[in-house]
Amino acid sequence: MSTAAAARITGLETYDVRFPTSRELDGSDAMNPDPDYSAAYLVLRTDAGDGLEGHGFTFTIGRGNDVQVAAIEALRPYVLGRPVAELCADPASLSRALVGDSQLRWLGPEKGVMHMAVGAVLNAVWDLAAKRAGLPLWRLLAQAEPEWLVSQVDFRYLSDALTPERALELLRKGRPGARERTAELLRTGYPAYTTSPGWLGYDDAKLTRLAQQAVADGFTQIKLKVGADLADDVRRLRTARAAVGPGVRIAIDANQRWDVAQAVEWTNALAEFDPYWIEEPTSPDDVLGHAAVRRAVAPVRVATGEHVHNRIVFKQLLQAGAIDVLQLDAARVGGVNENLAILLLAAEFGVPVCPHAGGVGLCELVQHLSMFDYVALSGTVEDRTIEYVDHLHQHFTDPVVIADGHYTAPTSPGFSATVHRTSIDTYRYPHGTYWAEELNT
Amino acid sequence: MSTAAAARITGLETYDVRFPTSRELDGSDAMNPDPDYSAAYLVLRTDAGDGLEGHGFTFTIGRGNDVQVAAIEALRPYVLGRPVAELCADPASLSRALVGDSQLRWLGPEKGVMHMAVGAVLNAVWDLAAKRAGLPLWRLLAQAEPEWLVSQVDFRYLSDALTPERALELLRKGRPGARERTAELLRTGYPAYTTSPGWLGYDDAKLTRLAQQAVADGFTQIKLKVGADLADDVRRLRTARAAVGPGVRIAIDANQRWDVAQAVEWTNALAEFDPYWIEEPTSPDDVLGHAAVRRAVAPVRVATGEHVHNRIVFKQLLQAGAIDVLQLDAARVGGVNENLAILLLAAEFGVPVCPHAGGVGLCELVQHLSMFDYVALSGTVEDRTIEYVDHLHQHFTDPVVIADGHYTAPTSPGFSATVHRTSIDTYRYPHGTYWAEELNT
Repeated sequence: MSTAAAARITGLETYDVRFPTSRELDGSDAMNPDPDYSAAYLVLRTDAGDGLEGHGFTFTIGRGNDVQVAAIEALRPYVLGRPVAELCADPASLSRALVGDSQLRWLGPEKGVMHMAVGAVLNAVWDLAAKRAGLPLWRLLAQAEPEWLVSQVDFRYLSDALTPERALELLRKGRPGARERTAELLRTGYPAYTTSPGWLGYDDAKLTRLAQQAVADGFTQIKLKVGADLADDVRRLRTARAAVGPGVRIAIDANQRWDVAQAVEWTNALAEFDPYWIEEPTSPDDVLGHAAVRRAVAPVRVATGEHVHNRIVFKQLLQAGAIDVLQLDAARVGGVNENLAILLLAAEFGVPVCPHAGGVGLCELVQHLSMFDYVALSGTVEDRTIEYVDHLHQHFTDPVVIADGHYTAPTSPGFSATVHRTSIDTYRYPHGTYWAEELNT
Repeated sequence: MSTAAAARITGLETYDVRFPTSRELDGSDAMNPDPDYSAAYLVLRTDAGDGLEGHGFTFTIGRGNDVQVAAIEALRPYVLGRPVAELCADPASLSRALVGDSQLRWLGPEKGVMHMAVGAVLNAVWDLAAKRAGLPLWRLLAQAEPEWLVSQVDFRYLSDALTPERALELLRKGRPGARERTAELLRTGYPAYTTSPGWLGYDDAKLTRLAQQAVADGFTQIKLKVGADLADDVRRLRTARAAVGPGVRIAIDANQRWDVAQAVEWTNALAEFDPYWIEEPTSPDDVLGHAAVRRAVAPVRVATGEHVHNRIVFKQLLQAGAIDVLQLDAARVGGVNENLAILLLAAEFGVPVCPHAGGVGLCELVQHLSMFDYVALSGTVEDRTIEYVDHLHQHFTDPVVIADGHYTAPTSPGFSATVHRTSIDTYRYPHGTYWAEELNT
């Protein structure tokens, strides 16, 4: 143990954790028929003697989780030995070291496995920073000085859309009323919508039952997966609309299933059921394709983002007028630092952020980003809502709490990223107790 | 050993091979000051009893090569046991299995570490297919039926720019005269340009000497790295222009160093030296940024592609009028299959392809793609040239041969991807003989 001021990062442990969700068809959609929701999980340890750890992870859907773990392992030398106080006071210093490493950069740049590994490590640092500050991450961010927040953002490749000066202006403008919004947030929470009724693997009776349950639970928006079969989608959307009535928003999600023309045709064929947005109509890389779809399906909104790999693609989606709804993901990009850039871009272009969640722990993470955005940047929850899926929360020590269709604001220190030790021991692949038994039979 | 018809893929071996190029400042540029050129290398074995193997690799610049190897390892179950004859007759079947795997897809989709691993495995299959056919890959492709070539392309997300029908048309149009062009190619080779004089780490005397040598060696285009310091670039470009005279093209390459405005300003500041193209002026993800740069720096051409991660981004670069020169890379995207798509897109938009090469083995691979394009698709070498860097060719069993500024057409069967066994044994990291000694001292 060292004195607190001299404490350093002394350990980075990784775990390949896989939950056997494919057994239940939870999470099935047009592109992902049998996901095993998984986390390439890491724990940062220090010698501060305060017992605090930083937890972070990349979400995957099964195979390849080991590759993601290998990528996180590759970052160990960049993290071990760093002074904890300095690191937590300036996570951007590590962000620069990881994103800017010339050799690792070749493996992206800033995309895919390596970039998600960078994001997992940075998110673990933010978790540790918030725990050390004794604050939930959203409050740490909301209370931070605008100048410091700007210092945490990498503006490279953004300056044609957003400069540090303009970002500072946005953050300063977002400040008045923060105290009142914090109180409001603690009172009523942040609006959520639910995808639980809408997986492709569910039959119509289950869809109806879950959709009605969602409304009864206070949700004002649900989401249905579409894109496998048009006749099925027409029937399912009719069923859902009948179940929830005209006043509840129904978003639809194609999970990248279509080319541009097919996206337009299919979405318009479902328009009579008044879908609120069409999500991931085509490749997440296709900025121009999304713009073309958006022009052709209005007034149905276009939403995307869960697979958008960095701030540069988000910048272009906004510049091209390609999206009505920006769906950031907490674990796809370069951690909180890059998500600050993305929130600032959305604010600059006046596009609402409705984060992607579900999977393993994405709800837990992303609520902090939206709550910061509400309190200290956009200042509104209008047309903003966080995805909610009722999966796997029991494995987290500080799980999300949904009340009356809202995320309850977390109050425990940290980024809500910590998984129970028993869950790790059970679901580590392939030697955890669950998998050892499953793979033996 | 099995009968030839029943032969299967029986092994996939991987090697982490790293060459200590940073010792020499070869390969230094504004983003990559100290690369150790590396290959995540693989060998496919069969039980056909003919001694033929498929070799493939991802090129990296050092750290992270182990992550790339892990990604290739993750693909082993998709490859082992496949019937060799079927696989080589239809590499697209494996491409679909790898690119379309729903769980692996989450790690991209179609980008970064996982996608490059897919590309390495597919390229190894193409190497094996060409060896079994007794043809260099360029001839296998150039002799193939247009219908079959179209069957090897994944048109998903391309149909707003290129359909299978249109691709077939382009290939049929490319056919007449193929015999004459093959003869011409075997006689004179394919035009090359050289980057060897232009690395940032070289002083002016070395730059002058190498630039003059390049002209003496028959090259009509050289390339200089720029983007670290404008005053230096002005001096280096003046030096290079003085060395080669007005008749030799000088391309400049910023390796993604700039934001949009800076790219415009810097390029225009170098315009007096008549640069032929500006390469990678900004992020490879920034389609709209490249388009903005192109509009502002004409008549200097804009070139990019070595870090463009898939056909969907190339499609948009072409749709947006963002590039004058398309620089495909043989080992960044999903193998020969995806590069066929990219060549077809370039042909459809009438944009010349000047592939990225250098590194480890990229020259060896990419010559086959350009030669196929010349013989059977674009039908021309006008404004087309393949990058050449005089690095590490001695490690290949069938190295490129440059004569009078041209790539000599390869005649050995395969994709020219095979590295000498002794080179692997020497440069395997960290236990090869070179590294074992280096890391001990």
